Amino acid sequence: MSDDPLVIFTPSGKRGRFPVGTPVLTAARKLGVDLDSVCGGRGICSKCQITPAFGAFAKHGVTVTATALSEWNSVEEKYDTLRGLPKGRRLGCQATVQSDVVIDVPPESQVHKQVVRKRAEAREITMEPATKLYYVEVQEPDMHEPSGDLERLKKALKEQWDLDVAGSDLRTLQLLQPALRKGKWKVTCAIHHSGIGPAHIMQVWPGFYEGSIYGLAIDLGSTTIAAHLCDLQSGEVVASSGIMNPQIRFGEDLMSRVSYVMMNPGGEEDLTRVVRESMNALIVQVSAEAEIDRELIVEAVLVGNPIMHHLFLGINPVELGQAPFALASSGAVSLWASEVDMVMHPEARLYILPCIAGHVGADAAAVALSEAPYNSDELVLIIDVGTNAEILLGNKDRVLACSSPTGPAFEGAQISSGQRAAPGAIENVRIDPVTKEPRFKVIGCDLWSNEEGFEAATLSSGITGICGSGIIEVIAEMRLAGLLDASGLIGSAEQTGTPRCIPDGRTNAYVLHDAAAAGGPLITVTNGDVRAIQLAKAALYAGARLLMDKMGVESVNRVTLAGAFGAHISAKHAMVLGMIPDCPLENVVSAGNAAGTGARIALLNVSARREIEEVVHKIHKIETAIEPMFQEHFVNASSIPHATDPFPLLNKIVDIPDVNFNVKQGARRRRR
Amino acid sequence: MSDDPLVIFTPSGKRGRFPVGTPVLTAARKLGVDLDSVCGGRGICSKCQITPAFGAFAKHGVTVTATALSEWNSVEEKYDTLRGLPKGRRLGCQATVQSDVVIDVPPESQVHKQVVRKRAEAREITMEPATKLYYVEVQEPDMHEPSGDLERLKKALKEQWDLDVAGSDLRTLQLLQPALRKGKWKVTCAIHHSGIGPAHIMQVWPGFYEGSIYGLAIDLGSTTIAAHLCDLQSGEVVASSGIMNPQIRFGEDLMSRVSYVMMNPGGEEDLTRVVRESMNALIVQVSAEAEIDRELIVEAVLVGNPIMHHLFLGINPVELGQAPFALASSGAVSLWASEVDMVMHPEARLYILPCIAGHVGADAAAVALSEAPYNSDELVLIIDVGTNAEILLGNKDRVLACSSPTGPAFEGAQISSGQRAAPGAIENVRIDPVTKEPRFKVIGCDLWSNEEGFEAATLSSGITGICGSGIIEVIAEMRLAGLLDASGLIGSAEQTGTPRCIPDGRTNAYVLHDAAAAGGPLITVTNGDVRAIQLAKAALYAGARLLMDKMGVESVNRVTLAGAFGAHISAKHAMVLGMIPDCPLENVVSAGNAAGTGARIALLNVSARREIEEVVHKIHKIETAIEPMFQEHFVNASSIPHATDPFPLLNKIVDIPDVNFNVKQGARRRRR
Repeated sequence: MSDDPLVIFTPSGKRGRFPVGTPVLTAARKLGVDLDSVCGGRGICSKCQITPAFGAFAKHGVTVTATALSEWNSVEEKYDTLRGLPKGRRLGCQATVQSDVVIDVPPESQVHKQVVRKRAEAREITMEPATKLYYVEVQEPDMHEPSGDLERLKKALKEQWDLDVAGSDLRTLQLLQPALRKGKWKVTCAIHHSGIGPAHIMQVWPGFYEGSIYGLAIDLGSTTIAAHLCDLQSGEVVASSGIMNPQIRFGEDLMSRVSYVMMNPGGEEDLTRVVRESMNALIVQVSAEAEIDRELIVEAVLVGNPIMHHLFLGINPVELGQAPFALASSGAVSLWASEVDMVMHPEARLYILPCIAGHVGADAAAVALSEAPYNSDELVLIIDVGTNAEILLGNKDRVLACSSPTGPAFEGAQISSGQRAAPGAIENVRIDPVTKEPRFKVIGCDLWSNEEGFEAATLSSGITGICGSGIIEVIAEMRLAGLLDASGLIGSAEQTGTPRCIPDGRTNAYVLHDAAAAGGPLITVTNGDVRAIQLAKAALYAGARLLMDKMGVESVNRVTLAGAFGAHISAKHAMVLGMIPDCPLENVVSAGNAAGTGARIALLNVSARREIEEVVHKIHKIETAIEPMFQEHFVNASSIPHATDPFPLLNKIVDIPDVNFNVKQGARRRRR
Repeated sequence: MSDDPLVIFTPSGKRGRFPVGTPVLTAARKLGVDLDSVCGGRGICSKCQITPAFGAFAKHGVTVTATALSEWNSVEEKYDTLRGLPKGRRLGCQATVQSDVVIDVPPESQVHKQVVRKRAEAREITMEPATKLYYVEVQEPDMHEPSGDLERLKKALKEQWDLDVAGSDLRTLQLLQPALRKGKWKVTCAIHHSGIGPAHIMQVWPGFYEGSIYGLAIDLGSTTIAAHLCDLQSGEVVASSGIMNPQIRFGEDLMSRVSYVMMNPGGEEDLTRVVRESMNALIVQVSAEAEIDRELIVEAVLVGNPIMHHLFLGINPVELGQAPFALASSGAVSLWASEVDMVMHPEARLYILPCIAGHVGADAAAVALSEAPYNSDELVLIIDVGTNAEILLGNKDRVLACSSPTGPAFEGAQISSGQRAAPGAIENVRIDPVTKEPRFKVIGCDLWSNEEGFEAATLSSGITGICGSGIIEVIAEMRLAGLLDASGLIGSAEQTGTPRCIPDGRTNAYVLHDAAAAGGPLITVTNGDVRAIQLAKAALYAGARLLMDKMGVESVNRVTLAGAFGAHISAKHAMVLGMIPDCPLENVVSAGNAAGTGARIALLNVSARREIEEVVHKIHKIETAIEPMFQEHFVNASSIPHATDPFPLLNKIVDIPDVNFNVKQGARRRRR
């Protein structure tokens, strides 16, 4: 056994003996310890920070003295002065091994660092981006060895990073010559390697490039386009933003946009143009928010339903509007972002997740990637609520999927006082079952409407309408307060005993808030609003039930609500409305924008792209449009909660009054 | 041994036994016989034509009866009626084997058919283009198996052609959906597979596409841009054209263009723009000539010297104008033609051959590919004459290369009566050594000027000047006729005894043709013209000698003159001028535009691309600019022929008068 000092890395536990004077980074590389470095050990990038531990380590069988590493050197001193090293940290490329030592690699110094997601049950994202930075020293040109600048750069990348690079884009080749000379034959390269095809150099900076590079995860929805801008080195989301999908002016739901194209041949070009224009507005918006040059966005991952997928790519969506709902391409699509006119880095790549089927798109695939039902032991039902609901049901043995046309009601459209989730929108509602008086919260204010200071706090935004999660809560609360019967009728003032129930044509409406005094609107819930939500929730429920039928189960272990909107739905209220199958309330979780998260996972980890490309082939697609049982479930699911399906678990937690307003007042009185 | 009929294919000699009823195409495929088919045996494309032979074949041990193949069928009848089958031909996919048979595969039915080059010693080009056509029948979409159109097309290509295709361009994906439906799930695809990276679909046509696809081989010279448009199925050149390089207005030779960029920062953008514009004019010109849609040009191969290479790619050429002459990229460059604004198929690919060194570019590599000195047993000297001469010397053991700055004199520039090779230009000259009277031929007319009908035949073009090959011939003839001495001085009328020698400033000029009476110019050869040619030929010769020094040889076995201009040089006259080293006259051949041919080889055969990419690394580059011996050879080579190098072989065939005009007339008389 060698007398060389023993080096033990934590948390990996990897260990080995190295001669005195070996840099810690070198030892880490030899042991395969995940320690980052962009500059290749030249004391420039500071990515290889480590923390030596001192003292006796019985567990490891070593005692580490204060002189186990070489003394703090001038490179570390300079770095610390210029940018500051956290206390106790050393640069792994500068500190050398002197005697037995235990070295901790902090998470931010790991190449494959993990990006922690907020939800406890959600899996972490391991950093493995397609585009990475590499600093290299390139051999100067030599007349007697007449290889080109690019060829010497490729040689340097091979020698210094063991990277096989096929070549560069033309633009990078144009930049390379001045960059090498300005950087005195030292450059930093951004190298893209998606794992398919060869790696290539997509950008080059003179010397050591101190900045970062970015990627965009995009969820292209029918109603909104949402984007997360991520730092491709740290994995952090540096800006998030959303924008309305301007195609709404061609039709609120997808089928009306397809109809537009059918009625207006060539109209798909208008739809493509406007969505690409908005995409660019969004790119400008997020890069401004993060204060970065948008040319630093070197790649993007996009998810969306099949019709948005086709329209964004400039493919006629008409085939998706009729059986057999044939996709132009079901596989993942890799292309240059410039091919779809995206204003990012000129050579940025765009990756679009695969579609599951003609009605279950890349957005559903992204939800699957985020929630990974195919890895679950339990049977999990995942509902991505949007203008179309994507529904997944399964576990590690089998996953089923379908899409259900809920319409835009859940997003506040088709609702009389409905609006987008924005400051001023009512998002939470409670109704006192005795007084029938409501209290509510609006977006942008943490107070309930009956709390002190609420009026002052909402003065600037006003109280402008009800957003999607608000409409679900108010209708569910109306049901719990006995203002609404199981068939979906709102009672009159007389029937309910509250003046908040006012006549509205041949039916009634409930006055949630009267801001008329303050110059604001009268915010009511009409019977038309209730009908719209009933149709939407029936479609959702019918889709979920259909999958349960196909799976041959009567209940599920967990329900995950996803979607920009799904994140804000109260599980209890969703169950009161009969949106989701009966399930223990504590097992109903909100996954937030899971499609967006799936896009972010695929952006930060190329292996995840291969994973979902494999998985989509194993997800069995159910076509709701041709399943008679879907219609049957739909019809049965329109009541709140409907009569044919018992909700034993729900009934344990809430007490739903047995009212029926579909009778003459006299008749009701007679029953009393 | 089976009793099945024996099938013997010629010329390959491949043989095997197949059950009665086996289509000939199937038998050919099973035996690996090179028999073409685009439609995959569906009787549509007629590419699989074969000729059965009948009678006794002692050599093969079979007797073939007239019923050895199945009867002429309705598919063949239909094809013959519509388009005509040559007599004796059958369609290999329709004719089935009935008894022992000998089947000849005519050259045009071979996939890897050979394109014969005109010169006997030149190697043939085997067809192996990167882009090929495939006809496929695609499965219709099925709601229960929701794969996309593209995925079903890929599956069909795998099943029907054993092709692994990565995907398609976005544009093709946009075209695919309507094409599949219009073609009733049958389409023809153009698939590009360069051999590096995966194959991809670049175009799709509904049904069977009857047309062809084309490729462009481009020689981008300092003075002219020449292009051959080739049919990628037959390999034939369907149109050739040339255009002046408009960069000439920024400087006639390469170094003046580099100077322009040095003096005008950003000026490289002007140079790039004008050459790309002309390239497009040329593309429009050749496609009009061939009467094809230029979007059918699916790929291009370009060769050019390093400075043209850089300027075309939009890379600053200044580094190439100074030591160490560093190329931005020395390797082969593959890119989209649209990246350099070429107006061909929107997804066309451009392949640029590798450069050998900073002064010896992709044009020299193309010459090497065309002439293959690296495969030669004999020591061959290849000179590509242009504004810069690329010189290669070698055999299969070793190849040396250099570039020599000859200037544009050989192309008719810097010559008082010089002009481009075009109708009206004098291209051949003979001078009677007794009478000193000239006769000549002009481009566009096969008659000598002293033959009957010459005047009438040249009436339309006129006699406008002297082109590059003409200037070499006239100066060599002047030397042979005793009108010019070894130092390059033209004698006076008195010294030479002909009134055609007229005073021209302090020296003399020779009147080659006086068209003044016909309103044309006075065409003379001035002493300035002789000096320009002396400088050019000295540079050429010095380069060749330098390589011979480095190789350690005093003579070569063969000399190949290449270049658009090299094709027209008379070997004898070139030797009289001392342009090339002494060599048996019959071993001096003209290879025509070898750089253009090299581009054509790389266009038609992807293996040739790999070949030259390998070869360039083995060619040893000599940098003339830093070799003292080059200067020495240059100085010594300026006389005609010069004194220090004996030309024993030349002196066997011509008798060069010993005149010296650099003396007073009296002095000369004294010597007599």
